[in-house]
Amino acid sequence: MRWSKSLIPTLKEVPQEAEAISHQLMLRAGLIRKLASGTYSYLPLGFKVLKKVERIIREEMDKNGAQEVLLPALQPVELWMESGRYSDLGEDMVRFKDRHGKEVVLGPTHEEVITDLVRKEVKSYRQLPIILYQLQTKFRDEIRPRFGVIRSKEFIMKDAYSFDRDIEGLNSSYEKMYKAYCRIFERCGLSYIIVKADPGIMGGNVSHEFMVLAQNGEDEIVNCPSCGYAASLAKAECPERIAKHDPCPRCGKELKIEHAIEIGHIFKLGTKYSKSLGAKFLDEDGKEKEIIMGCYGIGVNRIVASIIEEHHDEDGIIWPISISPFEVLILPVNPTHAESMEFAEEVYTSLLNDGIDTLLDDRDERPGIKFKDADLIGIPFRIVIGEKNLKSGKVEIKVRKTKEVITINKGEVISTIKDLLKKQKEIYGKSKV
Amino acid sequence: MRWSKSLIPTLKEVPQEAEAISHQLMLRAGLIRKLASGTYSYLPLGFKVLKKVERIIREEMDKNGAQEVLLPALQPVELWMESGRYSDLGEDMVRFKDRHGKEVVLGPTHEEVITDLVRKEVKSYRQLPIILYQLQTKFRDEIRPRFGVIRSKEFIMKDAYSFDRDIEGLNSSYEKMYKAYCRIFERCGLSYIIVKADPGIMGGNVSHEFMVLAQNGEDEIVNCPSCGYAASLAKAECPERIAKHDPCPRCGKELKIEHAIEIGHIFKLGTKYSKSLGAKFLDEDGKEKEIIMGCYGIGVNRIVASIIEEHHDEDGIIWPISISPFEVLILPVNPTHAESMEFAEEVYTSLLNDGIDTLLDDRDERPGIKFKDADLIGIPFRIVIGEKNLKSGKVEIKVRKTKEVITINKGEVISTIKDLLKKQKEIYGKSKV
Repeated sequence: MRWSKSLIPTLKEVPQEAEAISHQLMLRAGLIRKLASGTYSYLPLGFKVLKKVERIIREEMDKNGAQEVLLPALQPVELWMESGRYSDLGEDMVRFKDRHGKEVVLGPTHEEVITDLVRKEVKSYRQLPIILYQLQTKFRDEIRPRFGVIRSKEFIMKDAYSFDRDIEGLNSSYEKMYKAYCRIFERCGLSYIIVKADPGIMGGNVSHEFMVLAQNGEDEIVNCPSCGYAASLAKAECPERIAKHDPCPRCGKELKIEHAIEIGHIFKLGTKYSKSLGAKFLDEDGKEKEIIMGCYGIGVNRIVASIIEEHHDEDGIIWPISISPFEVLILPVNPTHAESMEFAEEVYTSLLNDGIDTLLDDRDERPGIKFKDADLIGIPFRIVIGEKNLKSGKVEIKVRKTKEVITINKGEVISTIKDLLKKQKEIYGKSKV
Repeated sequence: MRWSKSLIPTLKEVPQEAEAISHQLMLRAGLIRKLASGTYSYLPLGFKVLKKVERIIREEMDKNGAQEVLLPALQPVELWMESGRYSDLGEDMVRFKDRHGKEVVLGPTHEEVITDLVRKEVKSYRQLPIILYQLQTKFRDEIRPRFGVIRSKEFIMKDAYSFDRDIEGLNSSYEKMYKAYCRIFERCGLSYIIVKADPGIMGGNVSHEFMVLAQNGEDEIVNCPSCGYAASLAKAECPERIAKHDPCPRCGKELKIEHAIEIGHIFKLGTKYSKSLGAKFLDEDGKEKEIIMGCYGIGVNRIVASIIEEHHDEDGIIWPISISPFEVLILPVNPTHAESMEFAEEVYTSLLNDGIDTLLDDRDERPGIKFKDADLIGIPFRIVIGEKNLKSGKVEIKVRKTKEVITINKGEVISTIKDLLKKQKEIYGKSKV
């Protein structure tokens, strides 16, 4: 992409409205713009990051045999009556009357809809187990939207639902999803903490939250630096005690209380929905049984914000290669200098032909602005083409994260970049799971 | 994908509720299920088709320098007041009061929101031209939802918006999009007709509709088989005259009136929105001017239905290779026969390794059911592995469209399939534009 033709409106000043660093940087780097309280437009750069996160999620879901579907956002209120959750979400749930006076729910989550689908289509144990998922916009009328896309009224969720014959099946589906989540967050470059959590209105008795530490995170967790014990503060064995920094219930050493953002939450639902909605199957033994369910959510927009919370410095964002909007930025310092632009175009074409996602800063702006913007939008590798260097056959490659500058012969630029990219990709391709 | 592990619930009977053939086949082939009036869930097979159509759209948009964004579905009512369209959509527009009593619009289209974005971010002629687009769920409270996904309350639209300095710029953007639309529909295997149309509430003075002929299409067009003249019936020079099958206004021969589905609509908006919302830029001559706009819509779900309207026979769907949920179906006639399954698995692995999208019908069902389902879901190429054939080292390849059956040596199956796929892909890769 050529910067001069793109809508990447960077901002010099820190927007007053934004408290969280990720919110500030998403606005400053031109990733998002606010439309109204709790709703944001994703501009081209932000959208590209969103798509890369979605791709990682899809790959890890598909690898585990989960099948992608797309359910309606408009939901009949009757399903919420059936499940008994009609009032559970309170005013957070958007409801309206359609032109015929019928009450409609604007989907905040899809347990009811998916259970309705499965109760109609799955009849036999032969059709189980099955995991269905979707990437879809959800709606919640948040009383106080905050921190940009972290708490908004409209957000993209990956919601998956597992259907099994028995508890062993559920345990196995749950473990699959648990591991898939670990891989997803690792590939996104996130350091996450897993805590046992309260299933709350979702129901069931086992649930785990995936949390990323962040200054403005709305959740609190207790974390033991010594033994790795972690728990959501609400669920911790004795919140009052822990709040006083008393010893870790596992190893006895001191606990830390930290703020965190919830990026994923998985639940063993059991029969909560299959019972109330009557989702049954005929088992091998000829008996009719309730389907055993699990559900698994990821906040896609929150992942983007969390990555920025973790990966930034005073100059801007530092994208992990796996979800960076571009892999390489080409920066000709003086775009009115014919040879600089000629070489920049040559490198640009060559990288694009090799399938490398490249942004060419062909704007006729002062070098100071271009360098500042480059730091701000945080593309991992930057090829700086300067007049002087070029005369002696040299160009510079700057690594955004380490600020390291490598001066190389211009003939080596493609091979050097490919090498750097390969090494970076190996890091984010690896997983402990 | 293995059929036995997938949610592909085919139906033998034609569902009573469905009039249009595409609606019947989308239900019968397990692509969609109805949730409530005018809302449908996409099951794995239907979702895959949707994604392939979206990919074609993205490729053609990006090729023309359009940049993808994602705008909120929740829109502040004030923007609709500003544009003067608050009442134009009548009861089709979903509005509700949020928890603070503020009226919110559930986006039926996004001219207002995108113009609001551009008026804030685009200030200079240097930032123009620009084309922004999104693939997004829109909402309309249709009084009478019909024909499955053809007229529904919730649908995916590709909406693009162009912003230019002057009329010449708009003409050039419009032509780009016009040609991109032709390529998109051709790659989807659609025979479309382009008619001049009434811009209606969108505004502006030039607009073209892209139509696909279909028995249950809700639009009517007049079409001249002799000279190719076509017009939307509402807009035709003299509707009453044409309705009586009077001569073609261009060549004087007889006209035909046909039903059609609108799959795309493009508009030269001019300054309708930039004037009312105040979207201005500073031109090279130092003068402030209103931005000249165009808008370009495609109904993504309607493309899927239209493809089925055009490509089916009495047995089911016949997918064009470009958007088929799978490219190849492997059908071992007797899955309890060890050698058949062994060979099926071998071919399956080999095709997957070559990046060929393959479905393996590993269900333990009667051959009759498997063959009928295969015809119904319409995968272009089917590898039939029968016990007898296999004993003499043979397998069959059946072409869904022509019903042609080729018997080949089992060692040639991969190369033959690759050859057939290559030829098919060439057909849908080509374009007249």
